[in-house]
Amino acid sequence: MSKSDSTIRDIARTLGISKSTVSRALNNHYDVSQETARKVKELALKMDYQPNILARQLKLQRTNTLGVIIPETINRFFAKAVGGIQEVANSAGYNVMICQSNETLTLEQNNLQTLMSSKVDGLLVSVSRQTDRSDHFQYAINKDIPLVFFDRILEELAVSQVYSDNFDISFQGTEHLIQQGCKRIAFVAGPSHLFNSRNRLNGYLEALKANNIPVVESLIVQANYQAGHVQQYTRYLFDAKEKPDGIFAINDISALEMMHILKMKGLHIPRDVAVLGFNNEVICDFVEPTLSSIEHPAFDMGVAATRILLKQISSKEFTQQKELIKSRLVVRESSRRY
Amino acid sequence: MSKSDSTIRDIARTLGISKSTVSRALNNHYDVSQETARKVKELALKMDYQPNILARQLKLQRTNTLGVIIPETINRFFAKAVGGIQEVANSAGYNVMICQSNETLTLEQNNLQTLMSSKVDGLLVSVSRQTDRSDHFQYAINKDIPLVFFDRILEELAVSQVYSDNFDISFQGTEHLIQQGCKRIAFVAGPSHLFNSRNRLNGYLEALKANNIPVVESLIVQANYQAGHVQQYTRYLFDAKEKPDGIFAINDISALEMMHILKMKGLHIPRDVAVLGFNNEVICDFVEPTLSSIEHPAFDMGVAATRILLKQISSKEFTQQKELIKSRLVVRESSRRY
Repeated sequence: MSKSDSTIRDIARTLGISKSTVSRALNNHYDVSQETARKVKELALKMDYQPNILARQLKLQRTNTLGVIIPETINRFFAKAVGGIQEVANSAGYNVMICQSNETLTLEQNNLQTLMSSKVDGLLVSVSRQTDRSDHFQYAINKDIPLVFFDRILEELAVSQVYSDNFDISFQGTEHLIQQGCKRIAFVAGPSHLFNSRNRLNGYLEALKANNIPVVESLIVQANYQAGHVQQYTRYLFDAKEKPDGIFAINDISALEMMHILKMKGLHIPRDVAVLGFNNEVICDFVEPTLSSIEHPAFDMGVAATRILLKQISSKEFTQQKELIKSRLVVRESSRRY
Repeated sequence: MSKSDSTIRDIARTLGISKSTVSRALNNHYDVSQETARKVKELALKMDYQPNILARQLKLQRTNTLGVIIPETINRFFAKAVGGIQEVANSAGYNVMICQSNETLTLEQNNLQTLMSSKVDGLLVSVSRQTDRSDHFQYAINKDIPLVFFDRILEELAVSQVYSDNFDISFQGTEHLIQQGCKRIAFVAGPSHLFNSRNRLNGYLEALKANNIPVVESLIVQANYQAGHVQQYTRYLFDAKEKPDGIFAINDISALEMMHILKMKGLHIPRDVAVLGFNNEVICDFVEPTLSSIEHPAFDMGVAATRILLKQISSKEFTQQKELIKSRLVVRESSRRY
């Protein structure tokens, strides 16, 4: 009998439960109650069970840990996605380690190295704004590490990808503004090398074309996330001779900043300018007028990506999957004219 | 010459730089430019340098990785703290792995186990809302793992702690509302077993006493973070016979939700009710009236905690440190009556 087996037996005896319950509790199995799992782990800690767990993990070559690489969490989209990832991972007995690239390629490469060194069982990735290459991920794929991309995906890699319908929802949002009578819709665009940003811009352009509205280059502005930038492009748009009568913002916070500036200028929203945000943050309901937005399914994308990853980890005959998670237009007062 | 040495020599020769630069780049040393570090790492990846790095790390018993345990990142406070942690860690050549407890003790225990299994060089921790014990951390301390608590600290542990002046700033915020003429100030309190929540409540109570304002129990409400809860306690406070004329909210988002409800009821802010938030989110500047708040120094706390941890990692004669990071009252329109 190994030391590990005898520790499990001792824990079972002390707590008056079966050895299999102890074993499942130590493996974070979903059908053991939180209360029991806690008791077992506490006792295991006291009995210094740790080295045995490590030994077992080494033997199994499994760490029961998923690695996540995301740009950052100040942007609540990724914080919500992590919520979905944790829900699925934790209830399947996996723990989650998150690394942030801070939107840089160099840190993303370091993150990947760190998580691979920690021998995570699989990886969930949303790439940085700088990422215009994929060789570091190809390296992980060559090492047979299960890998799923979500939201900010790299199309060229032969791995599973979970994405949202950026083109469709951008088309739909733009068409909504057109239906409210907007003729000059300003569009705040993201970095053009990113798949999502390109699709959103294309959705906007196609909706204009489909409705015979001319594309005006000066109404398309490029967002960056530096302080003062929203003020700058709002001034640029509204100091022009022909001003926008609709705005499709890059996210809710910048939509609210634009709305505040326009209200201070005495403009009425939505009568003078209709405004549409992106992300559907809770705050959309607490401002006046309430802010129309796009529900970007962050949590659901995290859930879907993690389910696919767990399937891939547990099956040798896994083939890559692509899954689309639909976004949803939420119309509130800021864009409702009729 | 080991394989590792010969790989370093080959990289140096190919890129025309010194072996020591290659070595520093692979160790994420701060004085190597991002550009050079990237080139070296790409070449190292191509040459399959990974196993050697792992071998070296095993030899040094160092992973150049810091582990972070925080409740979650939907609350932007922790997202900002991680920003501060990453800034210091990354520029000192450390990578950061983050685990979220989702405000549960069980996950916090799992997180600790996972990060210890990954052999992080040190830990930065802000405890979960459920954490009313410290034995799991004591276990890590007994194993000589450098550990620093920040914001949500466990006073009883003999380790370094970085905290903010919750009592003082809560006293100051309450006194500000009193100076604006408020006589019935509602206070939204957090879980009473948490050090921070207790200090905030005490600061509020002391400010009332110092200004000869009676404490009214019915004006102190307990926050939880379930949907609809803010609506519920706002109704409770304002359906009462004697209504509050001031609110000290638990965070900015719930302050904005309360403000929205009160505005819809036809109340004027700040004339009828003065409102003070907590966290000083960017959104405070983009609403009408702009929201007064407390700048809780999240980023700075992350920076301070990480600096202390790195000191502890590199020195054998380290003694525990306590560091106070000051908060700041930011008065805007929502609480300014005069």
